[in-house]
Amino acid sequence: LASANPDHWKKAAAIRALALDGVAAANSGHTGMPIGMADVATVLFEKHLKFDAKNPDWPDRDRFILSAGHGSMLVYALLHLTGYEDMTLEQVKNFRQWGAITAGHPEFGHAKGVETTTGPLGQGIANSVGFAMAEESLRAHYGKKVIDHHTYVIAGDGCLMEGISQEAIALAGRQELSKLIVFWDNNNITIDGTVELSDRTDQVMRFKSAGWHVQDIDGHDAAAIDAAIVAAKKSGKPSMIACKTHIALGHAAQDTSKGHGALTDAAAMAEAKARYGWTTGPFEVPADIKSAWEAIGSRGNADFTAWQERFATVSGSKQAEFNRAFVGDAPKKLSATIKALKKSISEKAPSVATRKSSEMVLAAVNPICSETIGGSADLTGSNNTKTADLGVFDTDNRKGRYVYYGIREHGMAAAMNGMALHGGIRPYGGTFMCFTDYARPSMRLSALMGIPVTYVMTHDSIGLGEDGPTHQPVEHLAMLRATPNMHVFRPCDTVETAEAWELALSSKETPATLSLTRQNLPTLRTEHKTKNLTSQGAYVLADAEGKRQVILMATGSEVEIAMAARDILQAEGIGTRVVSMPCWELFAAQEESYRKRVLPGGPVRVAVEAGVQFGWDQWLSGERGKAAKAGFVGMEGFGASAPAEVLYEKFGITALAVADKAKSLL
Amino acid sequence: LASANPDHWKKAAAIRALALDGVAAANSGHTGMPIGMADVATVLFEKHLKFDAKNPDWPDRDRFILSAGHGSMLVYALLHLTGYEDMTLEQVKNFRQWGAITAGHPEFGHAKGVETTTGPLGQGIANSVGFAMAEESLRAHYGKKVIDHHTYVIAGDGCLMEGISQEAIALAGRQELSKLIVFWDNNNITIDGTVELSDRTDQVMRFKSAGWHVQDIDGHDAAAIDAAIVAAKKSGKPSMIACKTHIALGHAAQDTSKGHGALTDAAAMAEAKARYGWTTGPFEVPADIKSAWEAIGSRGNADFTAWQERFATVSGSKQAEFNRAFVGDAPKKLSATIKALKKSISEKAPSVATRKSSEMVLAAVNPICSETIGGSADLTGSNNTKTADLGVFDTDNRKGRYVYYGIREHGMAAAMNGMALHGGIRPYGGTFMCFTDYARPSMRLSALMGIPVTYVMTHDSIGLGEDGPTHQPVEHLAMLRATPNMHVFRPCDTVETAEAWELALSSKETPATLSLTRQNLPTLRTEHKTKNLTSQGAYVLADAEGKRQVILMATGSEVEIAMAARDILQAEGIGTRVVSMPCWELFAAQEESYRKRVLPGGPVRVAVEAGVQFGWDQWLSGERGKAAKAGFVGMEGFGASAPAEVLYEKFGITALAVADKAKSLL
Repeated sequence: LASANPDHWKKAAAIRALALDGVAAANSGHTGMPIGMADVATVLFEKHLKFDAKNPDWPDRDRFILSAGHGSMLVYALLHLTGYEDMTLEQVKNFRQWGAITAGHPEFGHAKGVETTTGPLGQGIANSVGFAMAEESLRAHYGKKVIDHHTYVIAGDGCLMEGISQEAIALAGRQELSKLIVFWDNNNITIDGTVELSDRTDQVMRFKSAGWHVQDIDGHDAAAIDAAIVAAKKSGKPSMIACKTHIALGHAAQDTSKGHGALTDAAAMAEAKARYGWTTGPFEVPADIKSAWEAIGSRGNADFTAWQERFATVSGSKQAEFNRAFVGDAPKKLSATIKALKKSISEKAPSVATRKSSEMVLAAVNPICSETIGGSADLTGSNNTKTADLGVFDTDNRKGRYVYYGIREHGMAAAMNGMALHGGIRPYGGTFMCFTDYARPSMRLSALMGIPVTYVMTHDSIGLGEDGPTHQPVEHLAMLRATPNMHVFRPCDTVETAEAWELALSSKETPATLSLTRQNLPTLRTEHKTKNLTSQGAYVLADAEGKRQVILMATGSEVEIAMAARDILQAEGIGTRVVSMPCWELFAAQEESYRKRVLPGGPVRVAVEAGVQFGWDQWLSGERGKAAKAGFVGMEGFGASAPAEVLYEKFGITALAVADKAKSLL
Repeated sequence: LASANPDHWKKAAAIRALALDGVAAANSGHTGMPIGMADVATVLFEKHLKFDAKNPDWPDRDRFILSAGHGSMLVYALLHLTGYEDMTLEQVKNFRQWGAITAGHPEFGHAKGVETTTGPLGQGIANSVGFAMAEESLRAHYGKKVIDHHTYVIAGDGCLMEGISQEAIALAGRQELSKLIVFWDNNNITIDGTVELSDRTDQVMRFKSAGWHVQDIDGHDAAAIDAAIVAAKKSGKPSMIACKTHIALGHAAQDTSKGHGALTDAAAMAEAKARYGWTTGPFEVPADIKSAWEAIGSRGNADFTAWQERFATVSGSKQAEFNRAFVGDAPKKLSATIKALKKSISEKAPSVATRKSSEMVLAAVNPICSETIGGSADLTGSNNTKTADLGVFDTDNRKGRYVYYGIREHGMAAAMNGMALHGGIRPYGGTFMCFTDYARPSMRLSALMGIPVTYVMTHDSIGLGEDGPTHQPVEHLAMLRATPNMHVFRPCDTVETAEAWELALSSKETPATLSLTRQNLPTLRTEHKTKNLTSQGAYVLADAEGKRQVILMATGSEVEIAMAARDILQAEGIGTRVVSMPCWELFAAQEESYRKRVLPGGPVRVAVEAGVQFGWDQWLSGERGKAAKAGFVGMEGFGASAPAEVLYEKFGITALAVADKAKSLL
């Protein structure tokens, strides 16, 4: 290999040496994968990847995604070698240390050039489908001169064994995402041993069955890699290149599961480096090799300049729209649109399910937000996510802004992450609230990465009715609220739904989950307020008349019940305040003085929510409350199959039960 | 169709008519799928399925799993028609109503003959892999005369689009589970429209790539269905039969997405029934057709009797072992084994990670529990789930009791559910705690079904270190604790780990999650107690010396920190109790008098756990606590990538921080 193509070999050796040194310094990490895929990465970066190391935020750059995120030293080595300014040698030396941008797994937002956070396997390849969809959409909207790039992915056996990969590749195949090119690091090794221990899938046949263009090559043969990429780019389908590689090539641990991990033995490292012809000390890259790599890093600069010139020829309004969408600013009209809708709703006071409320908001908002792309995991009519103006994103209509994701909650969430990460797109997508379970790994990554994806989760309680406990969330609000950096909105009517959407569409660094009902709810916010009350997280919806003895707290469909309970209590002369709490996270973020005004100490507190109590003690006995004067009305276990009204009655989530609970505590 | 095979047609028509009537009575449900698959189901039950309606618990029955669970009326119709005693006509008429066993989706434990809870798509087909593995394992252990049956599955497009199906079919293909036969209801319809909207996967090629035997037939042709099942049984591979069907056959909504839902229009129902040649009123099955079905239901009775006779010839000890395992009783030796281990550990007081503690327990327990089957999702060496005696379950060693599940957390969890549901097996399996996210939909079903699966979740906090926040759980304890009917054990040392395992292995109706550390922990339970203290959920590990001013609460790796904080506080004369809380659910289930003894009102309370506070207020300000005198030391957001000890220091989870927090509240 070395003799056949010495220039290539030296550049690849630089990656291999840095991977060895980085992992050895950290005494932790994965050495074998970067070593094994160094040849593929070198050819890709040298000959194909459109990028400019000095302009890493260039919107039309090719995206490079390391789905096999444990091989993070591969991307750090590439970024350092090609001259990304933030990826200093110091950072590489501090691999996996506190404060370094060289985290154990690539973390979005740490280092430029890291397009997404990977490590949880299969996520990167599934994100990449969103990247490629975003590219298609933006190319259709802004034209080829503004957006026209590829998305490249390196995926390992782990990525391909994870179920999410099937959702991703089937979606990509269906959508004929021809600018998506995946390299499979076919090294036949997993942590437990050879792949054979747990898998014999014919991956080539599998990808073909999903509508992909597939090639099978020697992943150490530079010419074959180059030819395969050329062919992949020509294909009208997404392309998978199976790269037969040797994990930890040239190291004593080559082709073993030991080679997957941290290779830190000094003698074995020295031997491997000798085989690479690498004679310099740790972290030392010979100047000629470094400058060869830096030339690769600046290869795209002319392209970047040309792009800037082309972009300057686009109309001013398109430029402004493009820049706004990439920065993530909401359209200027959003606030006025939401206010107008709120006013109209407060006057008309419709009784609708909040999933329908959400559709009403989207119908007003989608026409003024060209950056939204909506969708559903095969529950379009139930999630109410499709508005008339969107059109369907398809092979013959890339301007369409609605995606039929199929029965693929996980793939949908990961694709939405990819779209948001790409920039220029603000994705939202729906399924039943209970099936946040399926999307969970990607939802966590939305929160961890801090990207404004919006999850439209309908049928959010036993109010779903007859479908039964498999479809009735009880713990899911708690799960989402426990997740850092996730705004969980559970609006009680159309006005709160509009406010929640305004916040979701204005967010730049926090994803949102909208928890919406199947069943109809009355409009409770009948007095129009221009202020977005949901932005405070909780507020007094109806105050006590007379002496305030009771505070009822509720969210979503149970606010109606709290209001009815208040009627009962007030009729008995018990002054009762109702606090609507559509977003705990935003309420917790308010100043204490505000929180104290809403939840003063003293009165009895009863919370009502058609979910488990878990988490509610924060507001019941915490926050100036007292355990002995606090009660909860909700679910104690899983739901059941019956009509919604029967379930509310049988599980005791009624106005009478709330009033009785309050009285028992007085 | 009707004229070619009138006897078959009439029987199938009975299913179709009942499906129409059941859904219409409920005004809710899914009519089209039972109608579309009635022919396949009829042939399967009439000619192949080994069952005896009067002995539904026969351990060697064939298993029939409706993965497309929304078509629940198919299974209810079959169970009623074949004469299952609990599936009365009254139950069928009360489809989807409160208290009926005919839930919206098939719920395990409601009706005999419902082998697993389905509805969340893909779960049934993934459970079935566990059923088939259990069958292989038990056949190897007890011999063919005791266990030798097939597992049949009906899966729809939704099941096959869900990623979990890929994990399932690849695992089944790898393990050559030849007695697993899947019928794919190839009706080309999903809720949103035709499958084409979101998918063009060549499913036949896909299953072949996973090592399956595949056939493609007309799903309404009784002879073709029969021939395909015969061929499938002969194959040495798992078998997929693609059944081209018409959803809602014969109804005006045939072949449309409307046909997927509830077909309740009276005129259209009448028309469809006329096409079926069905002339009786709602829920009326002509006597001749009912008795033909009942003959099918009793067809297996002779087989059952023969099985009983064969079983009686097995040795008494084998019979006892078999019966004990199927009932789910722990081995008699378990208690003594655990006690002996605890005693030895308390004396030796090793400093080990609790994942290693778990391995030590398993090494003692696996040899006396022939019913355990362990495994890991490609983290065997990290999860410490493999003990020396188990052997590896493989095509040439069905007696092996360790499964290399591959990188398939979801498929593993669902397979474990299948094994537990089959009976005779007590499965456990491991991954990193953070990747409970991937397994989540199946873990919820373990809890909902009430089956004793044990999840061995290691690397349970920032203590995982350098792999960083993608691998560091912070919200996962809260998520699991919020889930009804899940025991979440977070043991602080080897003794508590042994106690947790004893409880997990003795459970019959509650799954367990063991939350275990990567990092070493000292033995804190150095004084041997025969009593299982973990069974109380929380207990006083070290009491205050002098006046009790502070109670520190902690779990797992943070109990050590609490003990060190106690040393600091006691040194300053502040009497401090430490409460170890390895299982909140069990503590909450104790009598109030016990809870009050452990957590009396009065003292300052500080909880320490390397996760989010969410949920802790239950014990801090609730349970006789006071918000103003309570504090929490833990995580406020996601973790970071650095060595574990650095992370604990940087995130302020230290004994000093705990002591300071307590003092600030005094």
